[in-house]
Amino acid sequence: MIIVVKRDSTQEQIDHIVALIHGMGLRTDVSRGIKRTIIGVIGEEDAVRNAPLAAIPGVEEVVPILKPFKLASRDYQAEDSVVDVGFGVKVGGGSLAMIAGPCAIEGREILFDIARQVKAAGANILRGGAYKPRTSPYSFQGLGEEGLSILREALVDKYADILQIGARNMQNFNLLSEVGQTKRPVLLKRGMSATVTDLLMSAEYILAQGNKRVILCERGVRSFDSSTRNLLDLSIVPNARGQSHLPIIVDPSHATGRPDLIPAMSLAAVAAGADGVHIEVHSCPEKALSDGPQALLPDQYAAVMGQMRQVAGILQRTIPAPRGK
Amino acid sequence: MIIVVKRDSTQEQIDHIVALIHGMGLRTDVSRGIKRTIIGVIGEEDAVRNAPLAAIPGVEEVVPILKPFKLASRDYQAEDSVVDVGFGVKVGGGSLAMIAGPCAIEGREILFDIARQVKAAGANILRGGAYKPRTSPYSFQGLGEEGLSILREALVDKYADILQIGARNMQNFNLLSEVGQTKRPVLLKRGMSATVTDLLMSAEYILAQGNKRVILCERGVRSFDSSTRNLLDLSIVPNARGQSHLPIIVDPSHATGRPDLIPAMSLAAVAAGADGVHIEVHSCPEKALSDGPQALLPDQYAAVMGQMRQVAGILQRTIPAPRGK
Amino acid sequence: MIIVVKRDSTQEQIDHIVALIHGMGLRTDVSRGIKRTIIGVIGEEDAVRNAPLAAIPGVEEVVPILKPFKLASRDYQAEDSVVDVGFGVKVGGGSLAMIAGPCAIEGREILFDIARQVKAAGANILRGGAYKPRTSPYSFQGLGEEGLSILREALVDKYADILQIGARNMQNFNLLSEVGQTKRPVLLKRGMSATVTDLLMSAEYILAQGNKRVILCERGVRSFDSSTRNLLDLSIVPNARGQSHLPIIVDPSHATGRPDLIPAMSLAAVAAGADGVHIEVHSCPEKALSDGPQALLPDQYAAVMGQMRQVAGILQRTIPAPRGK
Amino acid sequence: MIIVVKRDSTQEQIDHIVALIHGMGLRTDVSRGIKRTIIGVIGEEDAVRNAPLAAIPGVEEVVPILKPFKLASRDYQAEDSVVDVGFGVKVGGGSLAMIAGPCAIEGREILFDIARQVKAAGANILRGGAYKPRTSPYSFQGLGEEGLSILREALVDKYADILQIGARNMQNFNLLSEVGQTKRPVLLKRGMSATVTDLLMSAEYILAQGNKRVILCERGVRSFDSSTRNLLDLSIVPNARGQSHLPIIVDPSHATGRPDLIPAMSLAAVAAGADGVHIEVHSCPEKALSDGPQALLPDQYAAVMGQMRQVAGILQRTIPAPRGK
Repeated sequence: MIIVVKRDSTQEQIDHIVALIHGMGLRTDVSRGIKRTIIGVIGEEDAVRNAPLAAIPGVEEVVPILKPFKLASRDYQAEDSVVDVGFGVKVGGGSLAMIAGPCAIEGREILFDIARQVKAAGANILRGGAYKPRTSPYSFQGLGEEGLSILREALVDKYADILQIGARNMQNFNLLSEVGQTKRPVLLKRGMSATVTDLLMSAEYILAQGNKRVILCERGVRSFDSSTRNLLDLSIVPNARGQSHLPIIVDPSHATGRPDLIPAMSLAAVAAGADGVHIEVHSCPEKALSDGPQALLPDQYAAVMGQMRQVAGILQRTIPAPRGK
Repeated sequence: MIIVVKRDSTQEQIDHIVALIHGMGLRTDVSRGIKRTIIGVIGEEDAVRNAPLAAIPGVEEVVPILKPFKLASRDYQAEDSVVDVGFGVKVGGGSLAMIAGPCAIEGREILFDIARQVKAAGANILRGGAYKPRTSPYSFQGLGEEGLSILREALVDKYADILQIGARNMQNFNLLSEVGQTKRPVLLKRGMSATVTDLLMSAEYILAQGNKRVILCERGVRSFDSSTRNLLDLSIVPNARGQSHLPIIVDPSHATGRPDLIPAMSLAAVAAGADGVHIEVHSCPEKALSDGPQALLPDQYAAVMGQMRQVAGILQRTIPAPRGK
Repeated sequence: MIIVVKRDSTQEQIDHIVALIHGMGLRTDVSRGIKRTIIGVIGEEDAVRNAPLAAIPGVEEVVPILKPFKLASRDYQAEDSVVDVGFGVKVGGGSLAMIAGPCAIEGREILFDIARQVKAAGANILRGGAYKPRTSPYSFQGLGEEGLSILREALVDKYADILQIGARNMQNFNLLSEVGQTKRPVLLKRGMSATVTDLLMSAEYILAQGNKRVILCERGVRSFDSSTRNLLDLSIVPNARGQSHLPIIVDPSHATGRPDLIPAMSLAAVAAGADGVHIEVHSCPEKALSDGPQALLPDQYAAVMGQMRQVAGILQRTIPAPRGK
Repeated sequence: MIIVVKRDSTQEQIDHIVALIHGMGLRTDVSRGIKRTIIGVIGEEDAVRNAPLAAIPGVEEVVPILKPFKLASRDYQAEDSVVDVGFGVKVGGGSLAMIAGPCAIEGREILFDIARQVKAAGANILRGGAYKPRTSPYSFQGLGEEGLSILREALVDKYADILQIGARNMQNFNLLSEVGQTKRPVLLKRGMSATVTDLLMSAEYILAQGNKRVILCERGVRSFDSSTRNLLDLSIVPNARGQSHLPIIVDPSHATGRPDLIPAMSLAAVAAGADGVHIEVHSCPEKALSDGPQALLPDQYAAVMGQMRQVAGILQRTIPAPRGK
């Protein structure tokens, strides 16, 4: 951490700053430049990260040097984390999670039909919302418990729950701590205006409680162009992977909200190095109870899966083979 | 609601769209232009708002006409809501809520000292965080229960709790529904990338459960200029007030994160017509356990209160008089 | 175009609006709903697009239906434009423009060296800035005329100038009109906060003057996360291609500003369907006079070219073969 | 300037970095921390500001310490600049510039009428666009030369031209240098996604050519909420004034695009400490050829002027008195 001292600060103020830092058990390195004096803080930066140094008279700016996350960082673990979600499905380390299914679970028959088709195309994780957070209190909110029981039935007798933390809950820190205390894999979606550091800090909350099975998910950020629902930020894939060992997948359905853009963005996600792709699929979008307009048809999904598989191959990564119909 | 039909759509597709809408119990008004056919939907727009019309083949765009919120709208209630928070303090209708206090409750003595000083300056609501959501799991998280008990003691034997929904929880819809079922006043802070419609929809969740005592709060949105913590959007004050009867206050402390900007932004908030101003005050910012650098000193607070009172007077609005020391 | 009338507007106001529109030579279709009256405007929407209809008393909102661009639209030309930049290099229609070179031309020898290496890797267009717009008046501003003459020499006796409109000039409408009057191909870079419609409107300025050889270029938009220089928006590739026949290429160098992210983003750009990729390459980035830190080394460029060629192949698109050293 | 060295960098790399900086005539201060080594650069930071230090192997990050602008800074000139625009009108130092008039000059009679009314209300600078940059090539582009001659006539025999650099030209550096070589006052509008530093750097381009008469202007930035045209950032007023001696005014008309929000935002601008307010006024907005919907009526303007005058008084600042009709 570096403290930049104000141009007109007095020696007394500088001494006061230095004394405060020494009082925290850290050393300082004062460097007097022509225009500014800077004070380097030497020792465990974490000890001062949250101290209100910027409020000390004479301080112009406090510049942190280290990343504020630890357990999520490559410094802590150099090799990629591989999250085992059960039944042979692994996310990270070259195996891609191909997650597909309807936005919301609407009924037994329709979910079974979609599940059969996406499985045939090679999807290895089925999705379907039971509880749907909606911006309007008057919208369909999901089937709740009944939805969950249908989802489990669709997966026959074996299923591996993944807990999803939605974008709007990415900074619900109590929730993060609670899922950190479970042993379940967690899919942590990026908040609508979260930086890559914010996302990794939220992962840190889960990791700090002992749960290491965290999968990050990019799903678009808020932007000024309303022609897409959100702005898909694919650069976060290599950006997060450079700083963190955690796998990161991409959700082009929620990011774009437009089926005409989803195939291209799915391919781009795989090319960017994503550890998986999450796509909404519905066999009758015009009758879907939630987010129908952003779903692909099962045939469209199968087609884009074929292309994604080829792109993954170029990067020496693996997408499950189709299993016929 | 208006449905714009694709340029190359067939008569069959148009008939299919019209039939679907009639099936929802609504009427249509088909208008064939030179380049596009548009279908006006007549009847209760809410019936179709969440229907996946955009997924119907032939549909280019669905344009909603009415605002998606009802109970929060001026259509529903023309006159300003005045929220009575108890003990003679009212928010809205010309009375300004002057909320002040430290970011976090750190101890009995320091809170009492700050409370005494902001009260002397005219503040009518004391704030102090007991549970602090922090981006880092390693930061001070508040005193919890102990903090609450200190806060109640500072307010002697009479206190009126206001429930605060923080920016990160603005779209925690379960929480909104729950506070909607209480009888307590609610301070609903705008999410970091929430539109004015998003904010009013979150208020709608609370109102829909029967709790009418909702106070909106602007606290800055995410932006590209990192020289301030967030970007304070004062235009939301007249913008929200034009569409909604709910009072709206402004928090320049969290918005800017910079004490050098807070006095000017506080005055501007009152001039913009805000129903209150929320300012962090700390008697020793450099020792604060949370957000010290963004707090005003008690003397600075008293000075800006004096100016705010004058600006409020120009607008025929009232800020409580100072009560000496 | 649709005009939504205010809830409390009078019949007289509605008649006034209708009369004004008829006075513009257009027809109207008035549809009285339960809560709002809407007036459909039938005829050439362009005639009223810029009329101040929103200022008429009683008007709540004016909703345009058609896109404001014409010559750039797929409605005007359904098939992809292929821009011939000379000497057998075509952009669009399956042929990718592989543009590479240093940010600024710094000298004869260094440019020749870089040119030789990127050509060997398969690049078919050489770039090098002669005039560098810089945010600081104290930064290196390019070699100017001398730079241009070096660039021409590097290209031996045959060269095909492409005029580049930088992001900061995307809405310099006089400049757009002037390049529209030349016969040169134009590379139009997206402004830092331009929507897809803004970009296509700027292209329209050039097309309207008779110059059809416009190539769009995505180079990132301003965002709240400062960990990358800008936020690369790959969804604009299928988004623009859906609405417009113009080719669109991607510049991951300026978008990310980080060489560690450029290879992944280059692959993703090709996978997203881009008609070309623009990459800064420098043989000694640490000595570059402009934007050195964002350049790839020639060997890194050759490696990513190999992967991009494979991804392009999956999409039945062509990147020139390497030509050895 | 501080250079943060990568965790796994070698001593050889650190020596290489230090040698390069010494080669630029600067001194270094190497500070070895537990997790990172940092290198302080001592001397004229400008000498290295644009050097590609981030491209040197082993460098993780380059952290600038000083602001990149000089002539525009408070370090260079501590007291407020007062820009004399002629005929007794001064901007800055307590005198507010009250700029009013139509978006575009449409004709002699209408301009004279508006000029008379805004002058009566106290406006001291008349505005009227002769050349209108429009996003569409098919929109009214202004009367050009004819408009200029009408504008001069409206101002009778005495007029003081102020050159306006529009938001879209804020980073047209050639234009900035050219107006820097004139002796005319310059109104420099903030670009749609410009930071406060970007704005001050553009001012620096003008100042560096010798023209000291620069007035900054906030006119809103791009945001995700389309309910206003742009997002008015009033915090830039105290933010810029803290760092720079240049006066800054506010344009709520272009920022909001909504007459219902302009009065509140105008008052807020004065309360925030702005050195002037720029408001579009039109005597018949529904017939305006450009931006009619965002103009105030002359009576509305006179009313808000009265309130702004009172708010200015609280801050010991002066707005010209009304001059009757």
